[in-house]
Amino acid sequence: MRILFIGDVVGSPGRNMVNEYLPKLKKKYKPTVTIVNGENAAGGKGITEKIYKGFLEKGAQAVTLGNHTWDNKDIFEFINEAPLMARPANYPEETPGNEYVITKVNDLEIGVISLMGRTFMPPNDCPFKKAEALIKKIKKRTPIIFVDFHAEATSEKQAMGWFLNGKVTAVAGTHTHVQTADNRILPDGTAYISDTGMTGPIDGILGMKREDIINKFLTNLPVRFEVAKGREQLNGILIEADSNTGSAKKIDRIQISDENPFFE
Amino acid sequence: MRILFIGDVVGSPGRNMVNEYLPKLKKKYKPTVTIVNGENAAGGKGITEKIYKGFLEKGAQAVTLGNHTWDNKDIFEFINEAPLMARPANYPEETPGNEYVITKVNDLEIGVISLMGRTFMPPNDCPFKKAEALIKKIKKRTPIIFVDFHAEATSEKQAMGWFLNGKVTAVAGTHTHVQTADNRILPDGTAYISDTGMTGPIDGILGMKREDIINKFLTNLPVRFEVAKGREQLNGILIEADSNTGSAKKIDRIQISDENPFFE
Amino acid sequence: MRILFIGDVVGSPGRNMVNEYLPKLKKKYKPTVTIVNGENAAGGKGITEKIYKGFLEKGAQAVTLGNHTWDNKDIFEFINEAPLMARPANYPEETPGNEYVITKVNDLEIGVISLMGRTFMPPNDCPFKKAEALIKKIKKRTPIIFVDFHAEATSEKQAMGWFLNGKVTAVAGTHTHVQTADNRILPDGTAYISDTGMTGPIDGILGMKREDIINKFLTNLPVRFEVAKGREQLNGILIEADSNTGSAKKIDRIQISDENPFFE
Amino acid sequence: MRILFIGDVVGSPGRNMVNEYLPKLKKKYKPTVTIVNGENAAGGKGITEKIYKGFLEKGAQAVTLGNHTWDNKDIFEFINEAPLMARPANYPEETPGNEYVITKVNDLEIGVISLMGRTFMPPNDCPFKKAEALIKKIKKRTPIIFVDFHAEATSEKQAMGWFLNGKVTAVAGTHTHVQTADNRILPDGTAYISDTGMTGPIDGILGMKREDIINKFLTNLPVRFEVAKGREQLNGILIEADSNTGSAKKIDRIQISDENPFFE
Ligand SMILES: [Fe+2]
Ligand SMILES: [Fe+2]
Ligand SMILES: [Fe+2]
Ligand SMILES: [Fe+2]
Ligand SMILES: [Fe+2]
Ligand SMILES: [Fe+2]
Ligand SMILES: [Fe+2]
Ligand SMILES: [Fe+2]
Repeated sequence: MRILFIGDVVGSPGRNMVNEYLPKLKKKYKPTVTIVNGENAAGGKGITEKIYKGFLEKGAQAVTLGNHTWDNKDIFEFINEAPLMARPANYPEETPGNEYVITKVNDLEIGVISLMGRTFMPPNDCPFKKAEALIKKIKKRTPIIFVDFHAEATSEKQAMGWFLNGKVTAVAGTHTHVQTADNRILPDGTAYISDTGMTGPIDGILGMKREDIINKFLTNLPVRFEVAKGREQLNGILIEADSNTGSAKKIDRIQISDENPFFE
Repeated sequence: MRILFIGDVVGSPGRNMVNEYLPKLKKKYKPTVTIVNGENAAGGKGITEKIYKGFLEKGAQAVTLGNHTWDNKDIFEFINEAPLMARPANYPEETPGNEYVITKVNDLEIGVISLMGRTFMPPNDCPFKKAEALIKKIKKRTPIIFVDFHAEATSEKQAMGWFLNGKVTAVAGTHTHVQTADNRILPDGTAYISDTGMTGPIDGILGMKREDIINKFLTNLPVRFEVAKGREQLNGILIEADSNTGSAKKIDRIQISDENPFFE
Repeated sequence: MRILFIGDVVGSPGRNMVNEYLPKLKKKYKPTVTIVNGENAAGGKGITEKIYKGFLEKGAQAVTLGNHTWDNKDIFEFINEAPLMARPANYPEETPGNEYVITKVNDLEIGVISLMGRTFMPPNDCPFKKAEALIKKIKKRTPIIFVDFHAEATSEKQAMGWFLNGKVTAVAGTHTHVQTADNRILPDGTAYISDTGMTGPIDGILGMKREDIINKFLTNLPVRFEVAKGREQLNGILIEADSNTGSAKKIDRIQISDENPFFE
Repeated sequence: MRILFIGDVVGSPGRNMVNEYLPKLKKKYKPTVTIVNGENAAGGKGITEKIYKGFLEKGAQAVTLGNHTWDNKDIFEFINEAPLMARPANYPEETPGNEYVITKVNDLEIGVISLMGRTFMPPNDCPFKKAEALIKKIKKRTPIIFVDFHAEATSEKQAMGWFLNGKVTAVAGTHTHVQTADNRILPDGTAYISDTGMTGPIDGILGMKREDIINKFLTNLPVRFEVAKGREQLNGILIEADSNTGSAKKIDRIQISDENPFFE
């Protein structure tokens, strides 16, 4: 079986890329399941019900989130009626939304977990222990588990990869918005990448207008960040796994942009 | 002209890789100049005079550093007699060591700057302003300038890349120890990569023993980090630039490991 | 000569306290000069021209700021026409506003400096070096210098106090909104307190509605902070110094609230 | 009943003060129970069994800790045989040591909890939820509960105070090493102070040699911190509470130093 994962979709440029290329990617790679990180899908901050449903219509079977989960107020209206959307599981327990998702494609069930790091990030519950607890639950239903680890520090990401080595199908990092070149299969069958990269403007800074961000660094004056305009990119990964054991066999990086055109 | 840059060399495993592959890389790619980030070269923390000289003997013409600059006490003995070693330039002004290096190969002069980010890192002087000031100085002698930006946050790294776009030959990130897949030539001729990656143990966490790091995340108990053992990798980049203008034409990623064997 | 300093005035409750008690404090203590930290004066965030002028009308001769300097957009309209308002001096150099203020009362000139810490705060220029440079300038005109050090960490605050010991009349901390009980005259004649405390609601958390802040800690969900209602307090200090040498002789804490009523 | 609490004891100067003044304080105030924060008691970093037992011998009935808990290796030898020492309760669950202590004096039982903040501190479990859970347990045995909240940010400290208002006898802050002047009885009978202050050298920075700390701020070079020499201080609080309900009636600050001599 194959898992296609698309990294942080940023604003309408990111959604354009999903709309244009997700059908093509599905046609070309025939993924069993498609997962999209949507934490920046609404104007760079958060997600709306319309966007969530749009991802499903375009062919995703699960949506993950991150530190921007609550940035668009619409989330509070629909998070409890979004059965295929996983919010970071290590938020405090009473937090609305799903701690994990089991998405079903044909006869196959795929567990999807979103977790947030704590290094250089707000203090949530321990993502390592939360991962362990959820995996125990999900394993009762399916051996195929995909973990989106939304974290800043490469040390915490690699630690999660090795901690879950052999326990899940994949640990795919998100949040830094830059794809890393360290995709590999860890020795016990877990696909790993430190960061999947983002989907949206390619000439901004993390997808935002670059003049604003540079100004912020130079002046320390307050700046209102806006999604950048212009050329776009899509970043993702494609994982091949044994559907009986959940063990990963292969993890490939996907980049689509002017410099890396898509070939059907 | 060509610049070969090798990312954070970690401990003796990293130095082994440099010793074995730097000669081969030089033979294959014939770089005009070779630069090595040595901030973790001595047992994972800092650098010694012997190691610095060893890099030069193996064929490097400049060494850059980072937040681990001062971790091995030997540095204070030789930093002022190490003309080809650039410490992070945005440390306070009285800091010992070179704010930049101009290394000469045949008739060509190459300016080398090391800078440290401030996001999620200690509060040093503004790296953007320091970059501007040093570039002004170096431009009087040579248009070829290589910047090693040792920083944690991808936003600060991309901001530096765009800020120096057209002003320097290359902005190559270091510090996260994970190579990124976003190498590109920015529109005005600056080669850019968010992180070059590290050179050392491939099955550790950032090059350190992974059990220790995982334990630290799980328990918050104090841990003494050690360089990992076992299989090794080398991460670097190769930049092609116009020697008259300093404008970059091409930036390629280099990875050497069991999975990515070197072909002579 | 005497310096009266009133700590972070928060919103209309804080301004009410200034309006009511500043005249009474002036009548009772006859300060030579009165300085007010106004970084939270406008709804808890920033300051407006009207509020700035209001402080002067009520009898202040200088206003200091902090990390909330830019939170009310009005600041950009009047900061360059506010000769008695000192913004944090260690912001980047091109920042609008005064790096320091010399306020004149009768024939006496008093230098006023606002500085921001860097520990657990955004990365600005070194406050220690900035302090040194400004003191050198101001000393040409007057030996009386008041420093408002707006910082989080007690280590950085005490370090500034001892660093400026004998060089300025006073180092008074602000920002934590809690008055400390460590007011003292350092051995070379500098009055010191780690934090002056805030002026505004006494039953909130740092002056803000406490339910919101507690909720934030419990849930990590986004919260819109509002200035608290109800009972109020004023926190300040009174410094006695030699007007010829600028040397401090005495530093007293001032607290006004229901529990600590003001006696005329 | 009365609780005497002595803030962070730093090194031998701090222990000297405890040895000299704890007997005098006990004679003067006749506290029912005495609690000492000992996280810096061994050379500024951690605590040893000998020091722990010394506190008990001098008349303490409980010892609390903080972020320096593990800094002296001796802790691992005796923490599980130290029934009157409470380590921060919101460390991960498997952490050695007591999550809370119930100390018995005559017929009275007093619950003692140590908790650590998470703002500007390492990511531990939620201290608010941990407090709630432990209080529920302890309340079955005694209504008298003392909480040492070891935290950096005044917002988190005040939030804890208000969160536990009416649920515990006292929330006393530690960690910043500077006593605050905001001691008060919250409306539902909880004694509160943001920070109790430290016990040790008075002319250092947080008790450490001040030249080292200032140098660190100026140069960013590595520095080995040492406990300061010279004059000493003791900082503590004295709480009066109803022994039947646990409700606090009064909280007074204690300072002993050359400037604030002790009167028997
Ligand atoms: Fe994102
Ligand atoms: Fe994110
Ligand atoms: Fe490194
Ligand atoms: Fe580094
Ligand atoms: Fe404030
Ligand atoms: Fe502030
Ligand atoms: Fe302490
Ligand atoms: Fe502490």
